[in-house]
Amino acid sequence: MIGHDPARTYRAAVIGSGSGGLTAAIGLAGLGHESVLIEAADVVGGDCTNVGCIPSKALLHAAATADPQPLSTTRRLRDHLADEETVEMREHPSIHFVQGWARLTDRREPHVILVDTADGEVEVRAEHVVIATGSSPVEFPIEGLDPDRIVTNETLFEAQDVPRHIVLVGGGAISLEMATAFGDLGAAVSIVELQDRLAVNEDPVVSATIRAALEDRGVAVHTGTSIERFDGTTAVLGDGSTIADVDRVVLAIGRRPNTSGLGLDDAGVEHGTRGIVADDWGRTSVDGVWAVGDVTGNTLTTHGANAVGRKVVRGIGLPYLPKVGSLGAMANAIYSRPEIASVGLSLDEIEAMSPTRRRRYEFRFADTDRGFTDQIEHGVVVVEAERFTGRILRASIVGPAAAEMIGIFTLAIDNGIGLRKMYGMVHPYPSYAMAIGKIVDSFALDTFTALPREWWAMTRGRLRDRLRR
Amino acid sequence: MIGHDPARTYRAAVIGSGSGGLTAAIGLAGLGHESVLIEAADVVGGDCTNVGCIPSKALLHAAATADPQPLSTTRRLRDHLADEETVEMREHPSIHFVQGWARLTDRREPHVILVDTADGEVEVRAEHVVIATGSSPVEFPIEGLDPDRIVTNETLFEAQDVPRHIVLVGGGAISLEMATAFGDLGAAVSIVELQDRLAVNEDPVVSATIRAALEDRGVAVHTGTSIERFDGTTAVLGDGSTIADVDRVVLAIGRRPNTSGLGLDDAGVEHGTRGIVADDWGRTSVDGVWAVGDVTGNTLTTHGANAVGRKVVRGIGLPYLPKVGSLGAMANAIYSRPEIASVGLSLDEIEAMSPTRRRRYEFRFADTDRGFTDQIEHGVVVVEAERFTGRILRASIVGPAAAEMIGIFTLAIDNGIGLRKMYGMVHPYPSYAMAIGKIVDSFALDTFTALPREWWAMTRGRLRDRLRR
Repeated sequence: MIGHDPARTYRAAVIGSGSGGLTAAIGLAGLGHESVLIEAADVVGGDCTNVGCIPSKALLHAAATADPQPLSTTRRLRDHLADEETVEMREHPSIHFVQGWARLTDRREPHVILVDTADGEVEVRAEHVVIATGSSPVEFPIEGLDPDRIVTNETLFEAQDVPRHIVLVGGGAISLEMATAFGDLGAAVSIVELQDRLAVNEDPVVSATIRAALEDRGVAVHTGTSIERFDGTTAVLGDGSTIADVDRVVLAIGRRPNTSGLGLDDAGVEHGTRGIVADDWGRTSVDGVWAVGDVTGNTLTTHGANAVGRKVVRGIGLPYLPKVGSLGAMANAIYSRPEIASVGLSLDEIEAMSPTRRRRYEFRFADTDRGFTDQIEHGVVVVEAERFTGRILRASIVGPAAAEMIGIFTLAIDNGIGLRKMYGMVHPYPSYAMAIGKIVDSFALDTFTALPREWWAMTRGRLRDRLRR
Repeated sequence: MIGHDPARTYRAAVIGSGSGGLTAAIGLAGLGHESVLIEAADVVGGDCTNVGCIPSKALLHAAATADPQPLSTTRRLRDHLADEETVEMREHPSIHFVQGWARLTDRREPHVILVDTADGEVEVRAEHVVIATGSSPVEFPIEGLDPDRIVTNETLFEAQDVPRHIVLVGGGAISLEMATAFGDLGAAVSIVELQDRLAVNEDPVVSATIRAALEDRGVAVHTGTSIERFDGTTAVLGDGSTIADVDRVVLAIGRRPNTSGLGLDDAGVEHGTRGIVADDWGRTSVDGVWAVGDVTGNTLTTHGANAVGRKVVRGIGLPYLPKVGSLGAMANAIYSRPEIASVGLSLDEIEAMSPTRRRRYEFRFADTDRGFTDQIEHGVVVVEAERFTGRILRASIVGPAAAEMIGIFTLAIDNGIGLRKMYGMVHPYPSYAMAIGKIVDSFALDTFTALPREWWAMTRGRLRDRLRR
C-alpha cells in the first residue's frame, strides 16, 4: 500500500525495489512481517526489469524472430512487467510503499531512516534495514564525441531506431548480448575491449569461441585497446586503428555500487569502492543493517541478489534459525549467441591451485552428433576438475542452451557430486548435453586406468596448496 | 578390418552395427578384445544413423533454418556420418567386419554363428555373442490407399520433394518430430492417433501442451480414432471425419523387435513379442549371449542401447568386476517444437503408488520472466514428488531446451537428491530452468510449513504401498 505511519516501527525498511529489495520485502511479507519499501524511481523493479535483463532478453528475442518493431516491442513488454510489479507493490497489504531517496542516520534502535519525498522529508522507523540500491554503469566522456551519441544500458532501450553502426565499449555480458541483438537487427557492430579478450571473467576458450562466432557474423572485435577520441563519426583507437561511420556508442565497461547519499558513514556501515561490505547472509558491519545485490559487489546478477535476499528474509524473519550453510553455487549466464554459462571457482581461484592437482577437459559441440546435424561450429564445454576425486572446480559452457544446461553442474557442485559419480549418467540422444557425458568419459578413462597415479597427483597437489596457504 | 578367420575364436561376435552393437564392439576393442561385427546392411550405424535420430534431427534443423534443399541436406549429412562410421568399422584394427545375415546355432562352447554372406555361408566362433539387431516399424496396408503412398521412417527421408499433405499415423516421437519438421517446410500436416492423446507415454499435461502448440501452427490432430480407408486421396477415419487431399501417409505406430531368423530357439535364447528377454546388464537366458537395445524392448532409444551396451562391455571385458549398480535414470526426449523430455518412474508406476504419498507440481514457462520476454505460450515443467522427502518420482518438461534441462533431474534422481535438497539451488536469471526453482519453492512451502502433516502423509502412503504389494 502507498504510504506508512511515521510513528510505527516496522519489521524492516527496504531501500531499493530491484531484484534484491523485492525478494526481501515480499519474502518478509510471506512470513507475516510488515515492511516499508523505499524506491527513488517512479517504477518498481530496478535495473533488471527496467534497463537490464528484461529489456535485453526481450530485444534479443525480438531481433532473433525478426519482429518488425523490435525496440517498441521491447519497451511494451518491459513496461508491462514494470507496471505489474509497481501495482503489486503499491497494493500489497503488508508492504508500505514510499517514493523517495532514503538515507540512514545514526539512530539505531530502532533504525531511523530519512526519506526525501516529493512532499518533503519523512521518517521511517524499522528494526532492520535492507540496503538494495543496486549499481550504475560507469560513465565517462569521449573526446570529440557528442555526448548525445553515448548511451548506457539505462538509455539504450529508449532509442526509436536501430542505429546504423553501434560501438560497444567493454566486452562483458551487456556488450555480447547487444552485439548479438543489434547484429540480428542489421546494424553494423563493433566491440572495443581494453583487455586482450572478450568476457574476461570466463575461460579463455569461451572468450575465443564467442569472438569467433561474432566475427563470423560480421562483428568487428578490437581487444587490447580503447577509444582515444572521435574525429567526426570516426573512432580512433589506441592501437592506431579506426572505426568509421559510428552513430552510437554504448558504455558497458563496468558498474559502480550506488552507495552515495545513503548516509552509510553516519550509520557506521563499512563500505569501499566495491560497495557495502557484507557476508553471504547479507550482514553488514552494523547489527540490523543488511545489504544485498549489486550494492555489495558480492553478486552482480539478479539471481545473486535474489539468493542473498532470501537469506536476509530468513535472517530477519526467522532469526532463531541457525545461519549455517553457505550460498549455493552461483552460475553466470550471458544470453549472447552462442549462449555462455559458467559455475564454480573463479579463474583466479583455479589459477591459485596447484596444476598437479587438477585436469582440464574440453569437448566441442561440433564433435557431438547433434552438433553435427545442427552444424554447430562454435561451442564447447570446459570442465576443470580435481584429479582422482573428479570434484568439479569450474564448468563453462558456450553453445546452445548453455544457461539451461549449466544447472547440471550447479546441482553437482552443490551436492559434492564429482565427475566420478557422474560416470554412467545417461543424457538423451542426441542432446547437446551429451558433451557433458563425453567429458565424464574422458575423466573416467584418465582415472580408472591409473588410480594410483591420479591419487598421488591429487594428494601432492593438495599438500602443496595447503603448504602455500 | 574386413573379414575374419573362421578357425579363430574371438572374444565376441556382435550382431548388428547400430548404436548398441557399435558401443559393444568399440568398447571391447578399447579393452583390448577383438570381435567380429556382423551387419546385414551395406552401411554401418543402424536405424539411428540412417533412418532415425540423425536424419530426423538434420531435417528438423534444415526445416527450422529454412534450408532451400532440406531433404537433400538431410541425406547429405546422414550419408556423411554413415560413411564415416562404415569406413571406421571396416578399417578398425581389432574389429572384424562381416557383411551378412547372422543366426545363432546350438553350438555354445564357443558360440558358433552362421553368417549368410554374398559369398555363401561362413562360420564365426566367439566366446560371447551380443545381439543388437534393433527393431523395425510396424507396417500394415490401408484399404484404398496405393502402397506407394505409405512410408515409414525407413523410407521417409528418401523423398525428393516435400509432400503437400502428410498424414502421420501414431502420436509418438516420430510423428511429433515430423509434424514439426514438415510443418516448418510448408506441408499440410495431420496426425491420427488411436489413443485419446498424443505422446501417451508422457504426462497428460505434456500431451495437451504439444497438441496445443501443433494446432496453433495449423497441424490437424485426430485422437481416439484411426484411418478406416481411403476414398481416392481422402482418408476416412473411424469417427466419421475425413482428411482430404492426402499425398503421403507415414506409419509410426510402434516398433517390433528384429528377432526372426536369428536362430534364437535353436540357441535356447528366451524371447517374446517384446523381444529378447534380457536384464539391465544385457544378460539373456543363455550364458555368454547378451542382448542390447531395441531388440530387447527394455530400451527403445539410442542412449538406452548405449547405456546397456556399456554394461555389456564391462560384463564381457572385465568379467571379474561385480555386476552391481543399476542403470542410471533413463530420460526420454522428443525433439519436437516445443521439445519434450522426461525422466523417472513411468506413468503406470506412479499411478500404482498411493496418492497420499505424493504431490504433483506444475510450473508454466509463461509464468517465468524469460517465458514472458520470449512470449512462450506452450510449455510447462511437471514434477511428481514424494511428500516430505521430496524424492523425485518423475519429472517432465515440455518447452525450450527440455532435452538439455532434463539432466538436472536425471542427476538428482541418480544421486538421491530430492526437491528438499534442491532448495536453495540457484538458476541463472532469466533462464527457463528457473521454472525448476519455482517448483522447488512450492515444495518447500508445502513441506517446511507443515512438517508433521507431510511426514504422516508420506508414511501412511508408504505403508499402504507396502501392504498392497
